[in-house]
Amino acid sequence: MKIMRVSTTLVSTNRIHAMGHRPLLVVQETPNGPRSVAVDAVGCIPGDWVICVGSSAARDAAGARDYPSDLTIVGIIDHWNPEVA
Amino acid sequence: MKIMRVSTTLVSTNRIHAMGHRPLLVVQETPNGPRSVAVDAVGCIPGDWVICVGSSAARDAAGARDYPSDLTIVGIIDHWNPEVA
Amino acid sequence: MKIMRVSTTLVSTNRIHAMGHRPLLVVQETPNGPRSVAVDAVGCIPGDWVICVGSSAARDAAGARDYPSDLTIVGIIDHWNPEVA
Amino acid sequence: MKIMRVSTTLVSTNRIHAMGHRPLLVVQETPNGPRSVAVDAVGCIPGDWVICVGSSAARDAAGARDYPSDLTIVGIIDHWNPEVA
Amino acid sequence: MKIMRVSTTLVSTNRIHAMGHRPLLVVQETPNGPRSVAVDAVGCIPGDWVICVGSSAARDAAGARDYPSDLTIVGIIDHWNPEVA
Repeated sequence: MKIMRVSTTLVSTNRIHAMGHRPLLVVQETPNGPRSVAVDAVGCIPGDWVICVGSSAARDAAGARDYPSDLTIVGIIDHWNPEVA
Repeated sequence: MKIMRVSTTLVSTNRIHAMGHRPLLVVQETPNGPRSVAVDAVGCIPGDWVICVGSSAARDAAGARDYPSDLTIVGIIDHWNPEVA
Repeated sequence: MKIMRVSTTLVSTNRIHAMGHRPLLVVQETPNGPRSVAVDAVGCIPGDWVICVGSSAARDAAGARDYPSDLTIVGIIDHWNPEVA
Repeated sequence: MKIMRVSTTLVSTNRIHAMGHRPLLVVQETPNGPRSVAVDAVGCIPGDWVICVGSSAARDAAGARDYPSDLTIVGIIDHWNPEVA
Repeated sequence: MKIMRVSTTLVSTNRIHAMGHRPLLVVQETPNGPRSVAVDAVGCIPGDWVICVGSSAARDAAGARDYPSDLTIVGIIDHWNPEVA
């Protein structure tokens, strides 16, 4: 799983039916790194450091085996120091 | 999921039967980045910023569990500012 | 899916039974980029620009759900200009 | 599979139910490389060099077909010299 | 599939039960590139250039649908010139 930070919410009105109304969040591994989109399965807010699961596990984690996600937020990290590598 | 921009349509007359006649689009994460091919499941046009799902989720998202896609467009982003990172 | 160019055929006499006798081709995204191996499901020749599907979709695309492929050529691109990015 | 080193444990109190109480560990391929999160299926400690499996195999390896993991530690390497490349 | 060279065998006494006693080999795409671990399904030796399959295909290729592998050696390349790119 990847350690990412929630940036903002993403609005996509025109989406396939299978996505339903689950919230989509923009997440980043580093402040200036590429932005990805994750499905929120825990209820988090911008600024949170979260655990994102990919691969086929992202689907079940999003709530259903056939949910079309390849990146799902499965946990909020209690304390995280991005400076330490 | 990745945030990508639709560039052009892609014509491939000689394709395997399982792909059917679904439209294929060339998409890019950045203007000069590598070009990928995605199956369009929402109906978008060149210039649109879209959400692309990969992994096994791309298959169901394309309409059928056995559809041969590893990248499918599942939503159009309402507003996107590529400059903000 | 990735846009790749067929370079050469690859000979592997000692392979697992499940691979059968399907042709294996060396493909590249860019002329000097890393070389990958793809299963040919359409019948293409060196020099062709092709669409390669990965992930679990590569298996069904190769002809059977249990075929051991993670990269399968599913279409030949009619016209492709690698210079335009 | 990847060869990674266990760095620390990761605390995530707010996580999806499906993750249960399995220990989560921060792992790295190189000392200053990006940090990932892996589910521990063998019982290892910080400093151990371990084998991490990804893709859908990470799920069964974590103990159940529907476990939401995309990176699971499946073995501890007896002796490893990270200097030799 | 990736073209990789077998470097050495890897000893991991403490591994999950599902891995059994299948031989694990360290493989590399380039002489100084990162080292990965692959399950050997063909019987190869250090120095061999081999075809490695990833994704979910690595599992069936390793001999069983639930085998925890994400990289399995499925063939030995008859002749390979790593200098030609």
